[in-house]
Amino acid sequence: MSYADFQARIARINDVLCTLNLLAWDSRTMMPPGGVDARAEQVATLTMLAREMATSDAMAAALNAAQDEVGDGDDLPARAVALARREIRTLARIPADVIAEKAALSSRAHSIWVAARAANDFSAYAPVLERMMALQRRIAGAIGGDHPYDAMVGQFEPGMTHARLQAIYAELKAALVPLIQRAADAPQPRHDFMARDFPIPAQKAFGLKVAEKMGYDMNRGRLDDTAHPFEISFTRDDVRITSRFRESWLPGGTFALWHEAGHGMYEQNVAPEHARTIFATDLVNLYAVGGASFGMHEAQSRMWENRVGRSRRFWALHFDDLRAQFPDQLADVSQDEFWRAVNRVRPDYIRVEADELTYDMHIILRSEIEADLIDGTIDVADLPQVWNGKMRETLGIDVPDDTRGVLQDVHWSHGYVGSFPTYTLGNVMSSQLFAAACRRSGVSEGLEAGDYRPLFEDMRANVWSHGRSSTPEETLTRATGRGLDTAPYIADLTAKVEDLTA
Amino acid sequence: MSYADFQARIARINDVLCTLNLLAWDSRTMMPPGGVDARAEQVATLTMLAREMATSDAMAAALNAAQDEVGDGDDLPARAVALARREIRTLARIPADVIAEKAALSSRAHSIWVAARAANDFSAYAPVLERMMALQRRIAGAIGGDHPYDAMVGQFEPGMTHARLQAIYAELKAALVPLIQRAADAPQPRHDFMARDFPIPAQKAFGLKVAEKMGYDMNRGRLDDTAHPFEISFTRDDVRITSRFRESWLPGGTFALWHEAGHGMYEQNVAPEHARTIFATDLVNLYAVGGASFGMHEAQSRMWENRVGRSRRFWALHFDDLRAQFPDQLADVSQDEFWRAVNRVRPDYIRVEADELTYDMHIILRSEIEADLIDGTIDVADLPQVWNGKMRETLGIDVPDDTRGVLQDVHWSHGYVGSFPTYTLGNVMSSQLFAAACRRSGVSEGLEAGDYRPLFEDMRANVWSHGRSSTPEETLTRATGRGLDTAPYIADLTAKVEDLTA
Repeated sequence: MSYADFQARIARINDVLCTLNLLAWDSRTMMPPGGVDARAEQVATLTMLAREMATSDAMAAALNAAQDEVGDGDDLPARAVALARREIRTLARIPADVIAEKAALSSRAHSIWVAARAANDFSAYAPVLERMMALQRRIAGAIGGDHPYDAMVGQFEPGMTHARLQAIYAELKAALVPLIQRAADAPQPRHDFMARDFPIPAQKAFGLKVAEKMGYDMNRGRLDDTAHPFEISFTRDDVRITSRFRESWLPGGTFALWHEAGHGMYEQNVAPEHARTIFATDLVNLYAVGGASFGMHEAQSRMWENRVGRSRRFWALHFDDLRAQFPDQLADVSQDEFWRAVNRVRPDYIRVEADELTYDMHIILRSEIEADLIDGTIDVADLPQVWNGKMRETLGIDVPDDTRGVLQDVHWSHGYVGSFPTYTLGNVMSSQLFAAACRRSGVSEGLEAGDYRPLFEDMRANVWSHGRSSTPEETLTRATGRGLDTAPYIADLTAKVEDLTA
Repeated sequence: MSYADFQARIARINDVLCTLNLLAWDSRTMMPPGGVDARAEQVATLTMLAREMATSDAMAAALNAAQDEVGDGDDLPARAVALARREIRTLARIPADVIAEKAALSSRAHSIWVAARAANDFSAYAPVLERMMALQRRIAGAIGGDHPYDAMVGQFEPGMTHARLQAIYAELKAALVPLIQRAADAPQPRHDFMARDFPIPAQKAFGLKVAEKMGYDMNRGRLDDTAHPFEISFTRDDVRITSRFRESWLPGGTFALWHEAGHGMYEQNVAPEHARTIFATDLVNLYAVGGASFGMHEAQSRMWENRVGRSRRFWALHFDDLRAQFPDQLADVSQDEFWRAVNRVRPDYIRVEADELTYDMHIILRSEIEADLIDGTIDVADLPQVWNGKMRETLGIDVPDDTRGVLQDVHWSHGYVGSFPTYTLGNVMSSQLFAAACRRSGVSEGLEAGDYRPLFEDMRANVWSHGRSSTPEETLTRATGRGLDTAPYIADLTAKVEDLTA
């Protein structure tokens, strides 16, 4: 009964955290403008309830009793108790007032960010961002680590540190900078047709049909429109995604949809027996999620978006379908031209619209800035200048305004400081996982024929179903036979550039 | 500080209950089908958390300390403490397992009801309804009263009893039966044009424009489509309504919209200082709501739907606007014909589509059945037969199937047994409140000119702003100078029939 009591307590916390996810989803999709302040209070109250439930004396007693019952082995019950104990210990180090203020602030900061971005007014956003960074510094201090950024990135990617990131970034920069140059020196592909008039319902119908073919289950999901696409779940049986469609920019909405569907398939396919357990509950971030880490999550979204969706064989299979939706707009476009256009390499301002080659440069820039903000090397007030300087230095472009510069991302308003590196880690892991899957029976043949079931099943068996019962490193090792390795990712990007410039 | 501590505790409970309202809204508007079971668990967990917070020893101590601070007077703080104490005492009488099971059951029962109604299959619904009624009987037993139905109706209309209802029903039946007969004997108005093809976006645009003119604030609201229209709030600053539009039935969607907008205006205009207090928190039903009672709420919705929306002067003002939306469909219809059509008296199967004259007969039928179910006079298995027998006896019509009979209402699946009488009480009070308002300066002149602000302000000052800080009886007396009285309602209906048959 002790383990059952522990499990019942985690289940209730999961219910509260799933409900917090609904509060967040609603505030970004459905809530009328007037609801902002009350919603911030609701989010703060439920967050504090979840924290109280996790750090209560009753939970500590339940954990001890459960540990006595299950012992110190490596089976799932023992892992569950150990994981919960580890996360609750970290959570308890973060002062309650910091969690309460962060929760309330992130709801309000989101609206302020939306308005500041629309008005190109960094000064309107700076005060809440300053406050958010002060809270983050207190969190970093409470959790500890060699570098203050270790605590930040470690919340999202357990085991990752500032020092390891520097090594990974160095490997990537060494490979990417010459690849970007090579692509820039080659003749540029046509892309004029991407900005024609593409009615949104037809974009959605096409994108969703493919997402369902990939395996995203609409019976346990739904698709909405938001300024910033995201995926969020309220247990594996209700996993929602959003995208951002624009009439005059075809690839934006569809690729974002497949990206979010990748996240969605992960959550929908965590094993049912992990539902409402610690293996679907992140007690450090007080976040209901089944993925092993933010990086492992991103590995899935980037795999379906890039390894699958931007491949030559994908468009050999699906371009005719797309042209059936848009016969006039794509009448003068060949399949090869379309594939080249969705892979066009071009340094630009906006991360979410960046090509595969320049994407990580956007991440490295953000990660460096976050580390400098957290250790106090730079101030929030310096951000526009630092940002624009780094954009020039890294990608050689002048940022025209803060809307297309430092104000473009939602993350900091949400309190997600230290999450950007997980995008690059996800890119790296997506190539590792994809390469390993393609070596196994049926996966490549499936992709060749437009049958995504073998890849889906491979990911389900090796990654998704395990949820948080394996660490990201264990998950990666199970699926690929080794730990984090940039080589397959660099090989994929090199092959892509060779293919594009051949 | 004691009162502040009490207030802070109520505020947190209100946050949890507002969040429960969001879970309910979402499950009826947005949730994918697969989410049902997990949602039921989330609803049960949050309901139990709210109950624990309200009935905790810490809350009892806070209540005692607050009472010492504020004393026994009749000012708002003293009223707040007394109201909270009274409601917590009632809540604590209901066993925790009954509340938990009712919460979980009502989420599941809703989906089962939807499916059973669609399939015309009462037997699929009977088992959950049986279980729900068993829980309701336990609630009635725990709360007590002269008749077991007293506890049921008293949850929704404080102070109302089975005995008082019988007297009110007798007065209404004596007046309504001959009025229905008189309308039936008169020549029937044209209504053929109501079933023409009315595109839903245009219906919505017209209906919403009028609702905003009435005073419903879309900056703190939103409108969605559901099978069963409803209003729900997550504080006064986020009050959502739904309606049910059908292409081939014009009046359905628009009148339901104004009905729900009436509820919505009530919630949006509870005084800001009552937000997150006991005056916007119903601890008996564990429901975040600002209205004084369900009946007082219904008085508002029926006033805007019927006293305003079905009046001759309303269509004198708005028919041209409606015809501008539907020039072809209404080309051969006069303003007088339209007004007669929306007031057509005709005994029919469906409560929510019933005219003003027959509406209360539907309520009396349901109320009698509920009372008999609760005291064990009839069983759930007998319901279709009892329902159909009473429909023949009361309105003289044969119910063609259970979909249009006993399966038509959402209420029992939701656990709302005892709420139907509040619809008739709302009708009665709507006429009292409307008559009193029209005697005050500017209200009638405003209605004559299509300026709804004076009526809105009258309701805001005398009813809405007070929230639950006055009982329904006190609210009614403040606004009308007297208690519950069927005479103004009977006078309104008599005048309507005279006008229609003149």
